[in-house]
Amino acid sequence: MIVTDQQLQELGIKALMAVGVSQEEAEWVTDCLVRANIKGVDSHGIQLLRTYVPQVQKGIIQPGAKLRLLKERAASALFNGGSGFGYTMAREAMNVTLTKAETAGVAFTGVQNIGHIGRVGRWAEMALDRNMIGIVSQPGGIMVAPWGGRESKLPIAPIAVAIPTGKHLPIIVDMSLGPIAGNRASILAARGQKVPLGWLIDKNGVPTDDPVKYRDGGAQLPLGQTGLGYKGFALSFIEQILSGPLIGAVKRAGFVRTGGVIFQVLNIDAFVPLEEFKQDVDDLITEIKASKLAPGFSEILIAGEPEWREQARRLKDGIFIDDTIYQQILDTAQRVGVDIEPYKGKAGAAEVTHPSYTLKDRY
Amino acid sequence: MIVTDQQLQELGIKALMAVGVSQEEAEWVTDCLVRANIKGVDSHGIQLLRTYVPQVQKGIIQPGAKLRLLKERAASALFNGGSGFGYTMAREAMNVTLTKAETAGVAFTGVQNIGHIGRVGRWAEMALDRNMIGIVSQPGGIMVAPWGGRESKLPIAPIAVAIPTGKHLPIIVDMSLGPIAGNRASILAARGQKVPLGWLIDKNGVPTDDPVKYRDGGAQLPLGQTGLGYKGFALSFIEQILSGPLIGAVKRAGFVRTGGVIFQVLNIDAFVPLEEFKQDVDDLITEIKASKLAPGFSEILIAGEPEWREQARRLKDGIFIDDTIYQQILDTAQRVGVDIEPYKGKAGAAEVTHPSYTLKDRY
Repeated sequence: MIVTDQQLQELGIKALMAVGVSQEEAEWVTDCLVRANIKGVDSHGIQLLRTYVPQVQKGIIQPGAKLRLLKERAASALFNGGSGFGYTMAREAMNVTLTKAETAGVAFTGVQNIGHIGRVGRWAEMALDRNMIGIVSQPGGIMVAPWGGRESKLPIAPIAVAIPTGKHLPIIVDMSLGPIAGNRASILAARGQKVPLGWLIDKNGVPTDDPVKYRDGGAQLPLGQTGLGYKGFALSFIEQILSGPLIGAVKRAGFVRTGGVIFQVLNIDAFVPLEEFKQDVDDLITEIKASKLAPGFSEILIAGEPEWREQARRLKDGIFIDDTIYQQILDTAQRVGVDIEPYKGKAGAAEVTHPSYTLKDRY
Repeated sequence: MIVTDQQLQELGIKALMAVGVSQEEAEWVTDCLVRANIKGVDSHGIQLLRTYVPQVQKGIIQPGAKLRLLKERAASALFNGGSGFGYTMAREAMNVTLTKAETAGVAFTGVQNIGHIGRVGRWAEMALDRNMIGIVSQPGGIMVAPWGGRESKLPIAPIAVAIPTGKHLPIIVDMSLGPIAGNRASILAARGQKVPLGWLIDKNGVPTDDPVKYRDGGAQLPLGQTGLGYKGFALSFIEQILSGPLIGAVKRAGFVRTGGVIFQVLNIDAFVPLEEFKQDVDDLITEIKASKLAPGFSEILIAGEPEWREQARRLKDGIFIDDTIYQQILDTAQRVGVDIEPYKGKAGAAEVTHPSYTLKDRY
């Protein structure tokens, strides 16, 4: 059904406050979740309350935790996130990174021991308000095989990059280096749906289009096409090292699992005049979008454009939420004493699909 | 035939000095070329003399040019390379970047108006001696189509990353984001050889395995596998912006073609103790290499490993050089008055091919 962002805000804030999260932090976390829904990234939206509420109850997430500085130089910093809400830690770490880059030209910071940060693009976007380039990444789950292997050893590696523009919409890359998010693979497996050959292998290392076989001891293939998987292997491995060993986000006795989060900012003004940069990037976008089209495509979309369009549509028409998921969120809230009147949302479809691009293909 | 690295050194230094390059600069440029040969990266080896010697004669390369600082902050710098040898400019720029990162924690610099820098890995490797992580990239030629397009609009984007290790060989990623180097596509086209489907499209945007059709108005496909080319598109586009508009490496009136070079250094010591980092990276490498193998593979190789092996082999057995190319180099030298006795190299094969990995597949 279709609900409004205000309705989701109310639900999230009440549920989080019911388990002891301060009003300010509950508002911030919920804002991040609902913004993800508005962008069309439902996997990182309000449905995560189902996870966070019990995690706060069990002490896995420590509300109110403060970011603790471990090490600092003019253009770098290392933080411990104290098992707090990733949303709170990421906002503060990105603010420090931006401030450092403002003076030093560029900056790079890392947070170890940090909870889930939701949609990675949210943090890179913070750079846009200050006319800088933001780059944020983390390893995510281990689900990609090395080139030549058939076991998951590499992270899915979500990465986001936000780049200011002039007349065009800001560029926002928000993707993983691996082919498919773990939870999306699970959904497709449950539905009996297939994926294109080349994304997954089964437990014997044989390519498969079946997410069920992947989930039974298989792995995802690294980014690349036929014969080029060593490139994606290298990229994922770099990401694994930078957001793991480099920032001490490792399990000392064993092997990196979730790692930390790294934040990077490039201050455009330290290199070229901002207006020249924006003009040059605009020119590139215009040139790229003017490319003759490949068969089956009606338009070339720049990273971020599908989400900008979806945002405009959802702010106007409302947010689609799956009835089952909505009920599960209500149940979660009810279990912690929040008895909210279910919204009578309008019936509606999940997504507009662009002829040349399906939003949900990206997540 | 097979020659020694000393023989190639002598040839390169004499040819460059004959067109007015100082002994010091001729030695440095030649050293970079021969080191590429030793690593097995012949495309960036001594054969480039055929290009550089006439370019110096025509004034396209200005020997003796100095790197000029345009803008500087604690962790950033922008330089103009004065149309000098890229090798000279890259060495100096990377040294500045390393020194800045030593103090500031990280650093990022760019050089606009810079000549060819050869094997990009050479510059990232400079970080290893100082126990830091080096990242170097440049756009390279425009030969990749955007996702959904059928015209070359994006750069091939060579990128190199060097990461220190403990007991394992240092990680050296040295690759392009695009599927295949332009000159390799030309060689395959001339030989009538094919590439895997998924790398190239013809002028109508239809996938082709034929480099001839690619070279006739086609394009390369961005990194990704079936349906995932938007990921490679985003990565190449970021690279195009960072080594173009961000560092003013644009043709103001038109469109970025070759762009500049960007150098980035992460000082491990600003984050975690070096020995812990090395131990953690070693553990990751050990874990990854222990992955069960996919069918058809006999081993998992980490980025840089094939070149380290080839280097050991070539330093022992000598460097293979194609007879025709060797003669062309001798002719180039002769045209500028260097009359060198052709070496009587041993006959020999070009490359060892590893069962799971062909070195030449990478270039």
